[in-house]
Amino acid sequence: MSILFSKSLKKNIPIPYYYQLKEILLEYITEHHVNQDVQIPTELEISKHFSISRPTVRQAMNELVVEGYLYRQKGKGTFIIKPKISQSFLQVLDSFNNEMIKKGLKPTTTVLSMEVKKSDEKVSEKLKLPLDSQVIQLRRLRYANEEPIVYVVTYLPYSKCSLILEKDLQHESLYEILEQECGLCLLKATRELEAVIAGDYEAALLQIDIGSPLQYIKSITYLADEAPIEYSLAKYRGNRSKFSFELTK
Amino acid sequence: MSILFSKSLKKNIPIPYYYQLKEILLEYITEHHVNQDVQIPTELEISKHFSISRPTVRQAMNELVVEGYLYRQKGKGTFIIKPKISQSFLQVLDSFNNEMIKKGLKPTTTVLSMEVKKSDEKVSEKLKLPLDSQVIQLRRLRYANEEPIVYVVTYLPYSKCSLILEKDLQHESLYEILEQECGLCLLKATRELEAVIAGDYEAALLQIDIGSPLQYIKSITYLADEAPIEYSLAKYRGNRSKFSFELTK
Repeated sequence: MSILFSKSLKKNIPIPYYYQLKEILLEYITEHHVNQDVQIPTELEISKHFSISRPTVRQAMNELVVEGYLYRQKGKGTFIIKPKISQSFLQVLDSFNNEMIKKGLKPTTTVLSMEVKKSDEKVSEKLKLPLDSQVIQLRRLRYANEEPIVYVVTYLPYSKCSLILEKDLQHESLYEILEQECGLCLLKATRELEAVIAGDYEAALLQIDIGSPLQYIKSITYLADEAPIEYSLAKYRGNRSKFSFELTK
Repeated sequence: MSILFSKSLKKNIPIPYYYQLKEILLEYITEHHVNQDVQIPTELEISKHFSISRPTVRQAMNELVVEGYLYRQKGKGTFIIKPKISQSFLQVLDSFNNEMIKKGLKPTTTVLSMEVKKSDEKVSEKLKLPLDSQVIQLRRLRYANEEPIVYVVTYLPYSKCSLILEKDLQHESLYEILEQECGLCLLKATRELEAVIAGDYEAALLQIDIGSPLQYIKSITYLADEAPIEYSLAKYRGNRSKFSFELTK
């Protein structure tokens, strides 16, 4: 609280007060209180300290609630939501399980469905298969410490991956099975990222509000011989995920 | 239209009709009609063809409107929004201008402000400068073919980049000035991505609705000697941007 109240707003710049306050609160949230459930000062305290109106404070706080940094609890106050999980999914080709374990989080997976289907135009194109080829469609919801993080739909060519159908993907890693049991060598992946918002279906699965931001990542994973082996469509909860990586010139 | 009506919904799978229809429409939009302003069939036509209720059709279409794939025009119908600009910002260290030109788009830039400030805690940490060092803060809105694409706030160490203050950044590229006139050699960058939604301020700047998805990318660019030279915070319009790249094991 002391750090928050050591800041002040600037009067002669073209940035609205509410936005300046939002940036200050955001810094306070992300830099100084990275743990869950810390209460922040009330609207009235903030309004008094910064000499701005309560609607202005409310606007900044509302946006932080909507963006998933703060949450309100009736009769109790406004609290900081725990920080996003920083993932290296964009940097290294690793399994969700391994990544969560490295972060000290407990990964779990619910298999929503696993079935053999005929490939439609898009799946055929991505996996470089003729139309109506047999593919395995796998729909999974993946959790970190019991909290849903990502909903992912994966397509695999049946011819190379049929062993998957006998496996318990609640407890076994897809990549480990592909490499260690199917004898496949995963070499590289292409990823395409978009920021989208959650509709009814994703909101219910990921336990978030409709309209929450999602990181939508489409990936194709390739074998050493350049044959695509996996096409996946993953929707990550925006308020729980951030993705870091490095690039060189 | 013929392609759309060659599809059908599946009855015995655990995916709601509205979501199946949404996926079909999305494929129709992204694969077959990548140009702007194509009209799609009416709610009634779709409802009849797929034998589902109009509210179900409306739900799928509403989500595609909210997610920025479709737009409605009163009395005229529902149209496809032009496709997202596929950017390699995550793959190569290049300027926005170069990247847009490579895509055949005309980049323009509005400089909202450029001023020398004292670095706060966060900027100091990212640029590895003592607190209250002089930094240049540059706020820009960048367009492709007259359409706002990204709002970016950039911090540069004043000591190495003061030449920037004399430049016309509406027409000159920051990276070109840094390399060719300040004699700096940009080597690598770290990027951190989050999916967030637009508040009042960004919505007004980027000409989108409040609550629209944004791709929020924080970058630090480094010189050959590992000294950070640029810290930037960019908010890309989610409905106009997608980011592609490749990674190897």
